[in-house]
Amino acid sequence: MNRKLRYAMVGGGQGAFIGAVHRIAAGMDGKAELVAGAFSSSPDNSAATGKELFLDPSRVYGSWQEMLDSEAARTENRIDFVSIVTPNFLHHPVAKAALLAGFDVVCDKPMTLTVEESEDLCRTVSETGRIFALTHNYTGYPMVKQARGMISEGKLGTVRKVVVEYPQGWLSTLLESTGQKQASWRSDPARAGVSSALGDIGTHCENLVHYITGLEMDEMMADLGTMVEGRALEDDASVLIRYKGGARGILYCSQISIGEENNLTIRVYGTKASLEWKQEHPNWLHVRYPDAPEQIFKRGNDYLGEAASRASRIPAGHPEAFIEAFANIYLAAYEAMATRQHGDHPSVQDGARGVHFIHTALKSSTNRAWVDASYTPPQ
Amino acid sequence: MNRKLRYAMVGGGQGAFIGAVHRIAAGMDGKAELVAGAFSSSPDNSAATGKELFLDPSRVYGSWQEMLDSEAARTENRIDFVSIVTPNFLHHPVAKAALLAGFDVVCDKPMTLTVEESEDLCRTVSETGRIFALTHNYTGYPMVKQARGMISEGKLGTVRKVVVEYPQGWLSTLLESTGQKQASWRSDPARAGVSSALGDIGTHCENLVHYITGLEMDEMMADLGTMVEGRALEDDASVLIRYKGGARGILYCSQISIGEENNLTIRVYGTKASLEWKQEHPNWLHVRYPDAPEQIFKRGNDYLGEAASRASRIPAGHPEAFIEAFANIYLAAYEAMATRQHGDHPSVQDGARGVHFIHTALKSSTNRAWVDASYTPPQ
Amino acid sequence: MNRKLRYAMVGGGQGAFIGAVHRIAAGMDGKAELVAGAFSSSPDNSAATGKELFLDPSRVYGSWQEMLDSEAARTENRIDFVSIVTPNFLHHPVAKAALLAGFDVVCDKPMTLTVEESEDLCRTVSETGRIFALTHNYTGYPMVKQARGMISEGKLGTVRKVVVEYPQGWLSTLLESTGQKQASWRSDPARAGVSSALGDIGTHCENLVHYITGLEMDEMMADLGTMVEGRALEDDASVLIRYKGGARGILYCSQISIGEENNLTIRVYGTKASLEWKQEHPNWLHVRYPDAPEQIFKRGNDYLGEAASRASRIPAGHPEAFIEAFANIYLAAYEAMATRQHGDHPSVQDGARGVHFIHTALKSSTNRAWVDASYTPPQ
Amino acid sequence: MNRKLRYAMVGGGQGAFIGAVHRIAAGMDGKAELVAGAFSSSPDNSAATGKELFLDPSRVYGSWQEMLDSEAARTENRIDFVSIVTPNFLHHPVAKAALLAGFDVVCDKPMTLTVEESEDLCRTVSETGRIFALTHNYTGYPMVKQARGMISEGKLGTVRKVVVEYPQGWLSTLLESTGQKQASWRSDPARAGVSSALGDIGTHCENLVHYITGLEMDEMMADLGTMVEGRALEDDASVLIRYKGGARGILYCSQISIGEENNLTIRVYGTKASLEWKQEHPNWLHVRYPDAPEQIFKRGNDYLGEAASRASRIPAGHPEAFIEAFANIYLAAYEAMATRQHGDHPSVQDGARGVHFIHTALKSSTNRAWVDASYTPPQ
Repeated sequence: MNRKLRYAMVGGGQGAFIGAVHRIAAGMDGKAELVAGAFSSSPDNSAATGKELFLDPSRVYGSWQEMLDSEAARTENRIDFVSIVTPNFLHHPVAKAALLAGFDVVCDKPMTLTVEESEDLCRTVSETGRIFALTHNYTGYPMVKQARGMISEGKLGTVRKVVVEYPQGWLSTLLESTGQKQASWRSDPARAGVSSALGDIGTHCENLVHYITGLEMDEMMADLGTMVEGRALEDDASVLIRYKGGARGILYCSQISIGEENNLTIRVYGTKASLEWKQEHPNWLHVRYPDAPEQIFKRGNDYLGEAASRASRIPAGHPEAFIEAFANIYLAAYEAMATRQHGDHPSVQDGARGVHFIHTALKSSTNRAWVDASYTPPQ
Repeated sequence: MNRKLRYAMVGGGQGAFIGAVHRIAAGMDGKAELVAGAFSSSPDNSAATGKELFLDPSRVYGSWQEMLDSEAARTENRIDFVSIVTPNFLHHPVAKAALLAGFDVVCDKPMTLTVEESEDLCRTVSETGRIFALTHNYTGYPMVKQARGMISEGKLGTVRKVVVEYPQGWLSTLLESTGQKQASWRSDPARAGVSSALGDIGTHCENLVHYITGLEMDEMMADLGTMVEGRALEDDASVLIRYKGGARGILYCSQISIGEENNLTIRVYGTKASLEWKQEHPNWLHVRYPDAPEQIFKRGNDYLGEAASRASRIPAGHPEAFIEAFANIYLAAYEAMATRQHGDHPSVQDGARGVHFIHTALKSSTNRAWVDASYTPPQ
Repeated sequence: MNRKLRYAMVGGGQGAFIGAVHRIAAGMDGKAELVAGAFSSSPDNSAATGKELFLDPSRVYGSWQEMLDSEAARTENRIDFVSIVTPNFLHHPVAKAALLAGFDVVCDKPMTLTVEESEDLCRTVSETGRIFALTHNYTGYPMVKQARGMISEGKLGTVRKVVVEYPQGWLSTLLESTGQKQASWRSDPARAGVSSALGDIGTHCENLVHYITGLEMDEMMADLGTMVEGRALEDDASVLIRYKGGARGILYCSQISIGEENNLTIRVYGTKASLEWKQEHPNWLHVRYPDAPEQIFKRGNDYLGEAASRASRIPAGHPEAFIEAFANIYLAAYEAMATRQHGDHPSVQDGARGVHFIHTALKSSTNRAWVDASYTPPQ
Repeated sequence: MNRKLRYAMVGGGQGAFIGAVHRIAAGMDGKAELVAGAFSSSPDNSAATGKELFLDPSRVYGSWQEMLDSEAARTENRIDFVSIVTPNFLHHPVAKAALLAGFDVVCDKPMTLTVEESEDLCRTVSETGRIFALTHNYTGYPMVKQARGMISEGKLGTVRKVVVEYPQGWLSTLLESTGQKQASWRSDPARAGVSSALGDIGTHCENLVHYITGLEMDEMMADLGTMVEGRALEDDASVLIRYKGGARGILYCSQISIGEENNLTIRVYGTKASLEWKQEHPNWLHVRYPDAPEQIFKRGNDYLGEAASRASRIPAGHPEAFIEAFANIYLAAYEAMATRQHGDHPSVQDGARGVHFIHTALKSSTNRAWVDASYTPPQ
């Protein structure tokens, strides 16, 4: 590529948090620039946001449909891809329309509201041949890639047990009743879908396990709870999992774990060694052995594998964090856009797997029973 | 008391680990001395152990029955209590006989093999009026007492979620096939009972939650696994719990979590704050709030509650650890023996609760279903 | 400002590490764009770097003098500021020329080779009225700002003791003999000046103490060592400090502390409380009291002061790190450029203070004696 | 030995803290019993203490001279050794008299008030052939022994830098003015000697470096401060050290580092690797390499060296702490008493080295100059 990629954003207007993260991440490495946007369903908000971002006002739109039409019609400086950072219910229609309009797509998670929508999107990606990257951003961390590499090389032996947790505390009160923007839509079934905790953070757990270990679920037993009175969706979920091949798992996500911030943690126990990674201290990966000292692998060192090394920007001891990991998803998507081959970024199938996970957990919890959790998304 | 208490030990011969811990703990504060013992079913081992401990050979016995008979018959320097540190299957017969012979009892956990035995022991304690203390030693840690105190004072509000874990890795291979002493009896149903992981460490989890929070179980969904081929009992257990009053819990204990040492950890999330305590760093208690900095309460400081302060021996920053916590159980038992009132030590009812927990988890896992977990032991 | 600022970079060609960091930091928040550069003394390297960065080739220069002349002569899309990321010996000539050419300047540290050059730059800034920001990037961390705020509000009482350390291990061998680029110039007196460890990292320590506590040095006793045979400059320095007002300090910086990465740590002890901040875990600030639990202040929370809050981009628990802190220096400089008032960024006087510190430490170590360390840079 | 050793204690009456620690440590492993004592200069306190300890009243004395005379005259159940836990000024007279009376001695540190007394004690030990063990208890920690072993085996290469710190905060106010017992004598030159911080904790630092690395001091530059107004002795000390062979060191001890508890920490940097040990988390030893992951060596594992393994009582993950380390000093002394060979316990020469260190630091600080710190105690 002998120029920067050009992209448009849908969502991410004033008051939204994740839009700014996407913009920093997308532009961090100087490979892409934001040139257009439909930042809000409110045209005023959209226009104001565009102005703050120094965009050409003629490319700041009041609706995403208008934007896709107008950008598709351009013959010059046309956008290359669309970044979708809206509430969940818009992911499917916007992504599908963008793909069909001939744009590559970067989309936030959970991918869609329903399994049907997910599978439809899988087929659309396949039929259009466009690049689709889902921002399961935690897989962008270098030490997550190191964990994955060590497991694939057999350093842990056969995986026996996985414990993944994502406790947060921000919904410990009925925050949505105060009008707080994130809380309002995340706890609203019309915009968030059937789930709050599982959709927002449980899917990150599910995806992280799959990315690091490659394990596929076989059966699941979930216990979902709405611990804050008056809330419309679940805010706490504990799930027991049996993976194909015999490994067992615990998955715990929660929005009422008061005092917790964003404490995503994964532990994987194999027959030879185990590992632990904590998102709040992301530059370190702990590996433990039955008969040797614990090791702390640290980002930026020559002893790391290639995937971890490529995902680092600065030397060891100069910490990298959330935004840099996020930017790695975009970088992988850019490489895919250049090579027209999906690469080391979460795929549309990963998205479908996540949506299936949400619905399966809900079914198990409702039935209070173990349920079949095996799933193969359309390729 | 104007003299040291005198006690006899059953079990704890050469090759045993926990016997020495009990002896150090029992004698740590100069309140009791070991004067007799039936240390092994092997009279030679018992005699050799007694010699190492500088005991009068006439009070070192080849069987516990002989010991109880002989000690009960003494008119001078008679023992005050019996400390039982045998494999599980002997707890019930030795404890019952000791109580009936008029001795107080300190007994290791799990208390008995069956619920029936446990309930029989509850009744025996009640009928004889003797003191009975179970060595759920982790409740002896000062910061565990601090956690309990803070919850009982309402500092956390109403408890919503409890996550308790006890991963170990020492049985990641079929260690029992090598003849290793602890592994051999712990994985032998005849000596350990129906459970390995739940019995040895899961009961500590169950007891710790009950001690700290006061919560009673309502329902339970357990998934037990025997992850090492050839093993007779479960070595991994994940349990979802619903407590009376609405709180939810996850209990995870494992002997195949390779690389883990003795990583008992408890987190309790309330409506106002949460806390975390890790046994491997036992002098600190972390308390987290939604709107204030995390606090680390540290053993030995004036700002701690009375129970935590009484359980400390040395100033802050001079760490105390496992053996000192163990000794606190003995100290509480000695106070009970002096006052003839059960005190701040695990009781025979706590023991019954633990045995009931094991059997209920087993039933749930076998049936792959939620089961009723409520239980009130005989008083 | 209704457009992005435009800047040029001097230094930061292929093979340099810090240039890329500056570019990411400068552009992170969408407030500025790189439009020109003299990236290397090698015109080929400069051109290749410019191409990688998608720059207009006509604005990629073979020398910084040519660049300043050419950019100053532009009437359209002229640059607003110059970012200087060269080896130390070029800081003074480039910065002075840029200021005199009418540009604002962001410059790496240590500011100059000599005290005379530093003072000359102070005067030039004053005379030209341009904005000058020095990238003592560690002061950009939100929790460093929180530390500063708490001390200025008196939360620690009067400061009695400061311990600041910056151990690194990357020069534990004679790395410069292998041709490694950073090591080569940092240990070369012609390019680095009289100091290696003090210049590269000791000045960060000195600046961090001054920024957080406001303390001014009174006397100093330094012990500098060249621990790796064959090295031209010191690679280890231990300094005892007496501050005006009675506080005492220890400053330790080292490039031969093998196994250390970038472990900058500061502890400040007052009459009421103390604090500790570690650069490798930068989102947390530990505050300790004589009679209350330790507190961990965490980035992104509402309980933090205004300066820390303004310096944060994303919610608590989503870690920020080195590059984001670096970007905060740029943001503060941009605000200064907009308001034409120096703001919350290291100043030319801070730079002069750092250079004076280096030379004073050298003098003390050479004389093996306490020396006067008081200094007031020209305003 | 086919019986327990018998000992008497001097000091350690009611209100003292360290006496109880010595008693628990001395008796922990069932190898020794307290049979006599002169616990206080107040006969009433001494008698009351003896009663609490269930001692024979005829062996509880009102003065140490009386005790030594009376015990020396016994023909039966005579004590084997004397444990001295008094304020510093009594160490020399009591220890000398005990040695001359034919008893072995365990003595608290700093060993004496003056270098002359120390050297006198060295000679007395040599002339009497008695065992003398100084309770530099931190050398009893298993992971300190591991550190020592790894350095002696060359795992770190040649030592280049040592940083040892011992910050405490308990004397941040003029506590001695409140009558608090420890503070009163520790800040009283008549009872503590010429130093407070250096004597109480600085000597631990000095001893720990020597024990772990074997380094001998060559020169020293100290800056002592009395930071709390009204205090008679120094409460803060920072010392730069040059060791024989070229290594450099920083030693920092403080009693006014508010918020610190007992944060003794040592870091040793060699040419191959470095290590760090923190007393407040004593079961772990961190080892860091230039080109491999950090390792955490943990107490109780088979991969540790023999000295560390012998010093452990319980399995990995079951933490040991301060009192167990203290008990290891006693155990080593008992072994020495049995074999009549000084063993792995701090010696009378270590004590002399510590006292010399105090006086040399004082001289350097007074003169504000580097001073010769080399010293060889009498053998």
